[in-house]
Amino acid sequence: MLINEEDVPALARGCAVLGTGGGGDVRTGALAARRAIRAHGGVPLVRLADLPDDALVLPLSGIGAPTVSHEMIHGEDEPERVAKEVERIFGRPPAAVMTSEIGGSNGVAPVAWAARLGLPLLDADGMGRAFPEVQMVSMYVAGLPADLVIMSDVAGNVVTIRPVDGLWSERMARAVCVASGSSALMADYILPAVQARGAVIEGTVTRALAVGRATERAADPLRALQDELAARRLITGKLTDVERHTTGGFVRGAAVIEGTGADRGRTLTLELQNENLVALEDGRVRAIVPDLITVVDTETANAVQTEGLRYGQRVTVLAWPCDPLWRTRKGLETAGPAAFGYDFPYVPVEELA
Amino acid sequence: MLINEEDVPALARGCAVLGTGGGGDVRTGALAARRAIRAHGGVPLVRLADLPDDALVLPLSGIGAPTVSHEMIHGEDEPERVAKEVERIFGRPPAAVMTSEIGGSNGVAPVAWAARLGLPLLDADGMGRAFPEVQMVSMYVAGLPADLVIMSDVAGNVVTIRPVDGLWSERMARAVCVASGSSALMADYILPAVQARGAVIEGTVTRALAVGRATERAADPLRALQDELAARRLITGKLTDVERHTTGGFVRGAAVIEGTGADRGRTLTLELQNENLVALEDGRVRAIVPDLITVVDTETANAVQTEGLRYGQRVTVLAWPCDPLWRTRKGLETAGPAAFGYDFPYVPVEELA
Repeated sequence: MLINEEDVPALARGCAVLGTGGGGDVRTGALAARRAIRAHGGVPLVRLADLPDDALVLPLSGIGAPTVSHEMIHGEDEPERVAKEVERIFGRPPAAVMTSEIGGSNGVAPVAWAARLGLPLLDADGMGRAFPEVQMVSMYVAGLPADLVIMSDVAGNVVTIRPVDGLWSERMARAVCVASGSSALMADYILPAVQARGAVIEGTVTRALAVGRATERAADPLRALQDELAARRLITGKLTDVERHTTGGFVRGAAVIEGTGADRGRTLTLELQNENLVALEDGRVRAIVPDLITVVDTETANAVQTEGLRYGQRVTVLAWPCDPLWRTRKGLETAGPAAFGYDFPYVPVEELA
Repeated sequence: MLINEEDVPALARGCAVLGTGGGGDVRTGALAARRAIRAHGGVPLVRLADLPDDALVLPLSGIGAPTVSHEMIHGEDEPERVAKEVERIFGRPPAAVMTSEIGGSNGVAPVAWAARLGLPLLDADGMGRAFPEVQMVSMYVAGLPADLVIMSDVAGNVVTIRPVDGLWSERMARAVCVASGSSALMADYILPAVQARGAVIEGTVTRALAVGRATERAADPLRALQDELAARRLITGKLTDVERHTTGGFVRGAAVIEGTGADRGRTLTLELQNENLVALEDGRVRAIVPDLITVVDTETANAVQTEGLRYGQRVTVLAWPCDPLWRTRKGLETAGPAAFGYDFPYVPVEELA
């Protein structure tokens, strides 16, 4: 299939839902995608099975603090500078763009980057959601080495990192990102299709489109979204407290939702680091990372991203299971509660009544 | 000539004097140089004229805050990782190592790096002294593009920066350095010998050796050093106040020297950022960057580096002219008083009575 301009709003809506609050403002990515498609034409969506073994897959993502990327005007030449560096290093150009994280702006902006590069977009990503740190990707969980990161920023700088491991990769990339003004385009885990098989989460662009379309023309958008996601409703209520601060390239904070209607008298607290990490009620965990927790507008069922949280909003919090990959031992080590400094053990959202 | 183990102490002493307080602790560099020579043999010192036009010159320097590099145990594989990345990028290995700054540890440590790589050392550097920021080099003043920086750290990470200009180069390299624990090996301005001609300051390794030897067996070491440098004596006295703090990868601070003997009643204040930048007396400038200002032990004439300044030390402050390159318009723009945030106009030390 071809991703055309009219597909972008649904894709953006779906990416916002899968973003669990983070991944950057989808409006920025959607704007970039629409503009690039107008200039360069629609972007073919290809399956991994369609690519020859040696085709280079170029995973791209924006890195930075959402509250900054919100404000930053992205340049348009970063993808080309990164692709040029890829060709210099690998001796051949990339064959397809992949989104590193389907959640948030990073799910939809790759459409723009692929359009500009004249490349197809792979129907896959490295998270099935959004995560705040660069080593939290399926390729890392699959044991692939994070041995090359290429970054470019709006000023035109290109930085190539050959880190000794995933944690150094994150540390170095974050430092470069902050020096770039807390916003940069990043490529990591650049690999031939043969290596990507089994190491990426397939079908996630198609899924984001389906999630975005589920609420279109629905009589009850919230119900339609909940069904599409097979999600639990944790609470419906009013945002009564929002606390956010940007530090070290991350947004950290918390949000409190007081129940209304049938949920009157209940209070849910969300703790976040770019993404919503844990939902607590009376000190008990209702859902926890890596399962997905998204705040949506109760009326429209549109996702409310971290940077859009406002006092008084009428919202519903949904939670649903992550990709099985994140529930493996290595998956939980990488992006489970302990990876974010929580003492809570991981319990799948289906088991938290 | 061949730099042997017994040449290292004189070289280190000379580099400390040319370091104007900074460039990192020469003892660390000297130790590394002696150990590497013992393991790999002496290092040939070559002149630029001896190299064929296409021979790649590899300028190397340690980057970091002196108070940190002081404490850090440097790995021994950084030069090889950097050289490997050079070969990957240029398609041929480097032919000679050059010290980016002759002042301080960075003047003597390249002997170790050259010995480990089995390469000769070029009798030249990019400063003729030490400077705190990476764009403050003769290659930048000569108009060569700072379009490639390769860094490696003790953890084993290799970072290649393609900055848009020298200021971005400094900003990015500094960020990577801080992420590396405020210490890294850096190569920049990697260039063929043909481009280095006229863009580097020649003869500075020979000069550092001569400065280091001037005080050997001298009846009056201070007088011998002053004569070798053609330096002015700004004050002889006692260190009565030292203030230092490490911030953003730099050491900043000030030192106060109260005159003794013939200088009783006078007070000299040094302001520093890794290096000694300006010497003030009664609010008047006595010497200012890019001219060289070094604190030496009054008895032995050994240089006292920034991190070695201690209350009560009996010291003499010497000042002498920088390389003419730094007195050009571009030279002063790059490393004159204004480049360090001073309002003082530059006046050559010879004209400041």
